[in-house]
Amino acid sequence: MATLADLGVSAAINILSAFAFLLAFALLRIQPINDRVYFPKWYISGGRSSPRRSGNFVGKFVNLNLKTYLTFLNWMPQALRMSESEIISHAGLDSAAFLRIYTLGLKIFVPITVVALLILIPVNVSSGALFFLKKELVVSNIDKLSISNVPPKSIRFFVHIALEYLFTIWICFLLYKEYDNIASMRLHFLATQRRRVEQFTVVVRNIPHMSGHSVSDTVDSFFQTNHPEHYIGHQAVYNANRFAKFAKRRDRLQNWLDYYQLKFERHPDKRPIIKTGCLGLWGGKVDAIEYYQHTIKELDKLMTSERQKIIKDPKAILPVAFLSFNSRWGASVCAQTQQSKNPTLWLTDWAPEPRDVYWQNLAIPFVSLSIRKLIISLSVFALVFFYMIPIAFVQSLANLEGLERVAPFLRPVIELKFIKSFLQGFLPGLALKIFLYILPTVLMIMSKIEGYIALSTLERKAAAKYYYFMLVNVFLGSIVTGTAFQQLHAFLHQSPTQIPRTIGVSIPMKATFFMTYIMVDGWAGIAGEILRLKPLAIYHLKNMFLVKTERDKGKAMDPGSVDYPETLPSLQLYFLLGIVYAVVTPILLPFILVFFALAYLVYRHQIINVYNQQYESAAAFWPHVHSRIIASLLISQLLLLGLLSTKKAAKSTPLLVVLPILTFAFHKYCQRRFEPAFRKYPLEEAMSKDLLEKSTEPDLNIQAYLADAYLHPIFQSFEVEEEELVEVRVDKHQTNVASSPSSEPSSPSPPHHVHQPSPSHHVHQPSPPQYTQYPTSPPGYYYQYHPPSPPHYVYHY
Amino acid sequence: MATLADLGVSAAINILSAFAFLLAFALLRIQPINDRVYFPKWYISGGRSSPRRSGNFVGKFVNLNLKTYLTFLNWMPQALRMSESEIISHAGLDSAAFLRIYTLGLKIFVPITVVALLILIPVNVSSGALFFLKKELVVSNIDKLSISNVPPKSIRFFVHIALEYLFTIWICFLLYKEYDNIASMRLHFLATQRRRVEQFTVVVRNIPHMSGHSVSDTVDSFFQTNHPEHYIGHQAVYNANRFAKFAKRRDRLQNWLDYYQLKFERHPDKRPIIKTGCLGLWGGKVDAIEYYQHTIKELDKLMTSERQKIIKDPKAILPVAFLSFNSRWGASVCAQTQQSKNPTLWLTDWAPEPRDVYWQNLAIPFVSLSIRKLIISLSVFALVFFYMIPIAFVQSLANLEGLERVAPFLRPVIELKFIKSFLQGFLPGLALKIFLYILPTVLMIMSKIEGYIALSTLERKAAAKYYYFMLVNVFLGSIVTGTAFQQLHAFLHQSPTQIPRTIGVSIPMKATFFMTYIMVDGWAGIAGEILRLKPLAIYHLKNMFLVKTERDKGKAMDPGSVDYPETLPSLQLYFLLGIVYAVVTPILLPFILVFFALAYLVYRHQIINVYNQQYESAAAFWPHVHSRIIASLLISQLLLLGLLSTKKAAKSTPLLVVLPILTFAFHKYCQRRFEPAFRKYPLEEAMSKDLLEKSTEPDLNIQAYLADAYLHPIFQSFEVEEEELVEVRVDKHQTNVASSPSSEPSSPSPPHHVHQPSPSHHVHQPSPPQYTQYPTSPPGYYYQYHPPSPPHYVYHY
Repeated sequence: MATLADLGVSAAINILSAFAFLLAFALLRIQPINDRVYFPKWYISGGRSSPRRSGNFVGKFVNLNLKTYLTFLNWMPQALRMSESEIISHAGLDSAAFLRIYTLGLKIFVPITVVALLILIPVNVSSGALFFLKKELVVSNIDKLSISNVPPKSIRFFVHIALEYLFTIWICFLLYKEYDNIASMRLHFLATQRRRVEQFTVVVRNIPHMSGHSVSDTVDSFFQTNHPEHYIGHQAVYNANRFAKFAKRRDRLQNWLDYYQLKFERHPDKRPIIKTGCLGLWGGKVDAIEYYQHTIKELDKLMTSERQKIIKDPKAILPVAFLSFNSRWGASVCAQTQQSKNPTLWLTDWAPEPRDVYWQNLAIPFVSLSIRKLIISLSVFALVFFYMIPIAFVQSLANLEGLERVAPFLRPVIELKFIKSFLQGFLPGLALKIFLYILPTVLMIMSKIEGYIALSTLERKAAAKYYYFMLVNVFLGSIVTGTAFQQLHAFLHQSPTQIPRTIGVSIPMKATFFMTYIMVDGWAGIAGEILRLKPLAIYHLKNMFLVKTERDKGKAMDPGSVDYPETLPSLQLYFLLGIVYAVVTPILLPFILVFFALAYLVYRHQIINVYNQQYESAAAFWPHVHSRIIASLLISQLLLLGLLSTKKAAKSTPLLVVLPILTFAFHKYCQRRFEPAFRKYPLEEAMSKDLLEKSTEPDLNIQAYLADAYLHPIFQSFEVEEEELVEVRVDKHQTNVASSPSSEPSSPSPPHHVHQPSPSHHVHQPSPPQYTQYPTSPPGYYYQYHPPSPPHYVYHY
Repeated sequence: MATLADLGVSAAINILSAFAFLLAFALLRIQPINDRVYFPKWYISGGRSSPRRSGNFVGKFVNLNLKTYLTFLNWMPQALRMSESEIISHAGLDSAAFLRIYTLGLKIFVPITVVALLILIPVNVSSGALFFLKKELVVSNIDKLSISNVPPKSIRFFVHIALEYLFTIWICFLLYKEYDNIASMRLHFLATQRRRVEQFTVVVRNIPHMSGHSVSDTVDSFFQTNHPEHYIGHQAVYNANRFAKFAKRRDRLQNWLDYYQLKFERHPDKRPIIKTGCLGLWGGKVDAIEYYQHTIKELDKLMTSERQKIIKDPKAILPVAFLSFNSRWGASVCAQTQQSKNPTLWLTDWAPEPRDVYWQNLAIPFVSLSIRKLIISLSVFALVFFYMIPIAFVQSLANLEGLERVAPFLRPVIELKFIKSFLQGFLPGLALKIFLYILPTVLMIMSKIEGYIALSTLERKAAAKYYYFMLVNVFLGSIVTGTAFQQLHAFLHQSPTQIPRTIGVSIPMKATFFMTYIMVDGWAGIAGEILRLKPLAIYHLKNMFLVKTERDKGKAMDPGSVDYPETLPSLQLYFLLGIVYAVVTPILLPFILVFFALAYLVYRHQIINVYNQQYESAAAFWPHVHSRIIASLLISQLLLLGLLSTKKAAKSTPLLVVLPILTFAFHKYCQRRFEPAFRKYPLEEAMSKDLLEKSTEPDLNIQAYLADAYLHPIFQSFEVEEEELVEVRVDKHQTNVASSPSSEPSSPSPPHHVHQPSPSHHVHQPSPPQYTQYPTSPPGYYYQYHPPSPPHYVYHY
């Protein structure tokens, strides 16, 4: 149990390191050489094409204007200057809604902090010493400010209960307002957007196999029958996962080739030589440039034949298709209704926007999805509760004896006392760090295995898993000692009413721990976020070895994006801590407030200047944020109930039992009231946009507009020869028998063979987007399929 | 603990009473005077218009044909003769699916019984005496056949586990097949039906109030905009609950009038006199016939003015409407999609069939539905767990001291020893009986408060509540001693792993109790069902006092229907018992088998000869049946796990933990695979029926067909003067601006003022149904709005 002095030391260290990070950031960001690291968003959005610099050569790299050094915190007011609607048009609704979580946190906790500090601290402090606790439990000064200081059976507990009611009502009120706000922002955002392909597109999965008919024929005949007035065609999905692997390998080889060519250019006297064996460590020596050129050529041949195979082979067409409709109404109807008598066939849903499609998962056979879901649910459960077991195992291996057995020659070094103690303290911690570091990746892979077809869904599902992990391993794990597995075991063998008591009673004692946690993870962590050490290092490394042209410099930038799978769960953890401790140890609240304020500034700055979102889901994550805050409320109410029952304030139980029921009812109401706005697309909305469009653009060729929107990324890469592209398109248009919007249901119109010269998306030439314009990819930034995850599908040709 | 001898006595009593019931039934059913009690379905379906009788006068009442007495069980083969498809066309799919539950029970339990008896009994018996149980626990012979006889840590438990696996797989296999079967039967039933109004009708709730616009205008403008090609009009719903109350009162008065008129006809010398005061016990004496004629006349005036008020008052139009569409496709789309940006407005769903609508609940404001649901959920929870508390309280009042205090003059009688002991044994039991008797009514009222608008939904929801009650109070309540509330208290203070152990360990000991229960409730109860004592008595009473004509005789029949809210939960309890005891005490299984076989015969007979279903939901209850059997499986697995853990067969735990997970996964799969077939109407199906209809009946006037389908029952009663009806219709057609199917979205067609002479439904003249033909109401039975529940809305004019 930390004393106030310990806490002060910890606070000092963390505040200092946070300031150090901020100072470093302030110094680094004004150096022109780092401009692309700290302002990539402006390069992407076309607002900036080269660093602001002073005249001379040194000024190209180092900022020599001393005045700018004096105002090193001026990024903060700058970050606040942009209005919300500007942020929406600059970075999309996802980012704006993400920032609103922080303002929601401030709105919730500022009044709560004031009320709790003004009312609860005097009530607690004046309640006398902690005479009732056993002497073994060390009592810190913090505890005197907490509910622990109130003697059992005290009438004062009604103050805590009243405040719990008050806080619940306040939080629910703000949650309701915010949900309402976000829902209408979402609808407004969707309504004011320009025409977008996904508004007309529905993805259909599990197309049944008809013997003697191709997938395309089956799709066409089914939807021409069942949506005769609205269906106009479809875009087949090819199983190009193998091809994508080749593309990835080619990309890597191209990088090496660039590297050696650059090296050769700098030292034309010495041709670079490499070894062909494993990792370039052994094997025959060859000329590097020739070797890579040759290998790339070979790979190109392989890719061409693979592409031919995909296009020719009817089996490469997956039982999945993107259906195009002539109106939003038609697409909305198809997405929301059941098509087939067999409810597992012809499953329709809204198509994600093209950037958001996770192509690999489209190839997963639908039958395996149930099994995948089951397996992943069990794995997540195991991961959450047994995660500490392998860590402990690895930690037991990664001790000095293990190391000595593996590498006996190290013994003399290890036996040195200084090194030994360092290693003993370091190795187990390192093992834990490594495990925690790979956790988000593991969770993301799990979500991918579950088979969701949109990146946004994948991220949301990974975030949910991470939240459970945090809840059990960070929150419960810190409160109740022992590993999560031991807790699970204890909980299974305790009565349900005992669990809130066990946890509730240790809650006040852990307040100091969580204060330290907030300072380390929240304050210093967020300040570290703005420094962007990793992208900074990578950018300069790439600049050194790969960059030849200005365009390469642009490619070397890694703007990144808000890391929802990690950020949302940690945010939700802070909400949980704040809500739980609001009536128990209110002195914790100011720490939370500082976190929310600082994080708000930092993320606002990052969203404006750095991040470039890969997709736009129009705040689709909000229902999760809402329901997790509700869950926090429920947890806090149950724990307070448990805590008070140990305080023998039995009369208060009925009062507190009502609260979770009401909170849950509120949640259900909100769910019914708002959630459909995030899941469905109302016909009213669709129809009004359709009518508007019909009056403003009466002769729009919607078919041409949709023609290539969901073309598989492999056909969008620049190597595809023009004739091949045409071939694909002809093939596609032959199969997509289209009926004009005004045709009668009983008279299917003849097949269109529209060979409109739709331009292929040349990734290398920065050209304005041909069809769609996304708010996050303004003119000037080339239309590009963003890779689904960092290590896959990097199409930087 | 009952010994084998006790059980034998109980069995003898119950078998004898069952036989007595069957014998009485066999004798009574062949008496011509009872023909309308035991064969009402045939009168309703037109298959019979008067009892088969021998020639003379006595033969009109008593069967004198001695031969028929010799074959008193010949109803059994008769009941089996009808094929399933005949039953579907004779009594509807609901009844056929209901019978399939019994055959499913037989299919599940016949092989399980054989296997369990052949394998488990030898294993259990040979395991040695019950040496390990404490001496206090009385050991019966039944226990020697059960799992209790196997010593702890025995390897033999793997036989039980293997059989649990085997049974689970077998049950899941049959459940899957049956779900598949029922789902396709449902789809086939819906597909082969003739045109039905509900296929074209969608109910919309929570129509927003627009100031300055009537509800009808709002509906028309909204759906003409958003479903321009399919919407053709709507039928407004009037708040006629007050009028319905008058109609009910009028009906009661009319009954009395009939009674006194009949009395006067029989004794023309003496005009009947009644007292006008409370209950006819005091007050001034008046002539009964004149009094009732006068009161009815007054009431008629009141009803006329009320009806006028309803028709004139725009506020009497509820924010609910039945929307008519020109195609099944259009209706299907509207029912399945979200209409408005605000997801709590314009809520569309399939309309129940007209007979199935529970009109009163349409008047419930939508905002209150959430609160109603919350309150009812809490009430059901309280009811299930605290039901015994008021009973115990009443029982404590209803003892002899209480009685003496209330009625001191009874003391001399009560003090008699014989009467005292009788009363002491009788009164508390009576209190319990009364409470249990009113329980289904209470549950039905609760479901009505929840606000469901279809009778079928109400019955399903009441059945669900009754199931929870049975599960807690009958199943758990019998196994764990004490009231449900004490159990709840105990469970809350036990660890989750302890609960299955507590229950599991007492399971084998309660086998004899449940055998007795099955015999009393199952065997004798079912045999009592076929006797129909209550309808028999009521029919003869009515015959004596009210019946004047043959038609009145028809009205006096009370065919009744399968009482789903009570029957389904009891059936599910038998499944639970069978599944739980299959591996624990397999000797219980034959009792279950006898129940299923007997109940199958009885209900088959009743469905063919007696019951007349009030609505047809096309087996909509099946998902509930399926999921409750799955729940039984899960319960049995958990209890076996608990039981085995007390037997220290710890090694078996992992084996048994897998089973519930797999069972649950199977359930999820079935849900995804089949449940949409019971909730949604696939577009494929709708379109194919539309196309078929378009080709066979190209000039069908769908608007005329739908015109009066959902007219409120008050406008269908015969008192409505013709001009008034026309007025309503004109009003309706003026507001229902209709657009023809082929009209373009942008050009709303002019309002139709179609005054087609649609016949009003004269209830008094048996006429064939004008528009719809339901399988359960064949020609000859007049088209009539069935009353939602016995005490309300009896329209027997």
